[in-house]
Amino acid sequence: MKLLEEYIVNKGKVIDGDILKVDMFLNHLVDVDLFNEMGKEFHRLFGDKPINKILTVEASGIGIACIVAQYFSVPVLFAKKGVHRNVGSDLYTADVFSYTKGTTTTIGVSRKYLQPEDHVLIIDDFLADGNASLGLISLIEQAGATLEGVGIAIEKGFQNGRSRLLEKGCDLKSLAVIKSMEGGKIVFADEADS
Amino acid sequence: MKLLEEYIVNKGKVIDGDILKVDMFLNHLVDVDLFNEMGKEFHRLFGDKPINKILTVEASGIGIACIVAQYFSVPVLFAKKGVHRNVGSDLYTADVFSYTKGTTTTIGVSRKYLQPEDHVLIIDDFLADGNASLGLISLIEQAGATLEGVGIAIEKGFQNGRSRLLEKGCDLKSLAVIKSMEGGKIVFADEADS
Repeated sequence: MKLLEEYIVNKGKVIDGDILKVDMFLNHLVDVDLFNEMGKEFHRLFGDKPINKILTVEASGIGIACIVAQYFSVPVLFAKKGVHRNVGSDLYTADVFSYTKGTTTTIGVSRKYLQPEDHVLIIDDFLADGNASLGLISLIEQAGATLEGVGIAIEKGFQNGRSRLLEKGCDLKSLAVIKSMEGGKIVFADEADS
Repeated sequence: MKLLEEYIVNKGKVIDGDILKVDMFLNHLVDVDLFNEMGKEFHRLFGDKPINKILTVEASGIGIACIVAQYFSVPVLFAKKGVHRNVGSDLYTADVFSYTKGTTTTIGVSRKYLQPEDHVLIIDDFLADGNASLGLISLIEQAGATLEGVGIAIEKGFQNGRSRLLEKGCDLKSLAVIKSMEGGKIVFADEADS
């Protein structure tokens, strides 16, 4: 998605060679107009599927998911972080390891809100190693619901999230795929491959 | 706001006399159509002010704030939880005590994204004791920005958040004010007072 790539190049900052800082439009200060354009694009990519629910994880996925959901006319369910696994609890839970933070967080959703008849689109701001998306997919599997696709704003194409999701048979679509950012120069996969 | 009151009465659940569970439409599974109606109403209430930024706090405030921001054509800044106070850091921070959880969290925003020239509307899902809103107001004060108002979805009118915010001179508007919920019966302030 050209517009998102322009935002990344013009506003984003590469730090220490492998951290992409986009908190000036994506995950701290939030550009709602950009999110709307992303919503239109995700609807173009996934709009032919029988999606009835969007699933994301707090915190930075929530804003994107809510704006995107308007284009699908469906509710958003956001998994909470830091929940406790209890036997007999009313939650589906999954452990998500963050390489960035070096910690594991348990995410969870209420069983009531994720049902076998649900057709779910996962929306998130970033895909790197894929752990967050795989955690969300685990929640969908536990519920017996159907995963229709995974829509990502920015994918770090040089990490292994894509291959791990494709192994699960996911329909994965990322609006901007970064192939490399060595020396602070951001190269997008579609440009590099064309 | 009649529609929100109807959601609360028809879908919400009162637990243990003073906990209102609205996670089926507000803060876990999210009804985006309702949020849009709330956005229109907040714009009716605050649209004559020179607001250029909406401020909220993760996690459950983000979705509402992003949808509401569309009606003001402004960006959203969300304060992060669990940040660290460091001398010389690039964050404004405030400590927020949660009576529900019995814990104090430090919230913060990047100094870059909250500036003296900003005119800020705070949006949040709940007002009870007011600690979260007062924390956000402290961030605005530290930045030397102007607080234009506080817009709340659901206010627990039987707690002291309102009086604490009015003491600060806030223009506070809540879309549904619960006067009491004794015995599980929810009474709204405007109905009770009329």
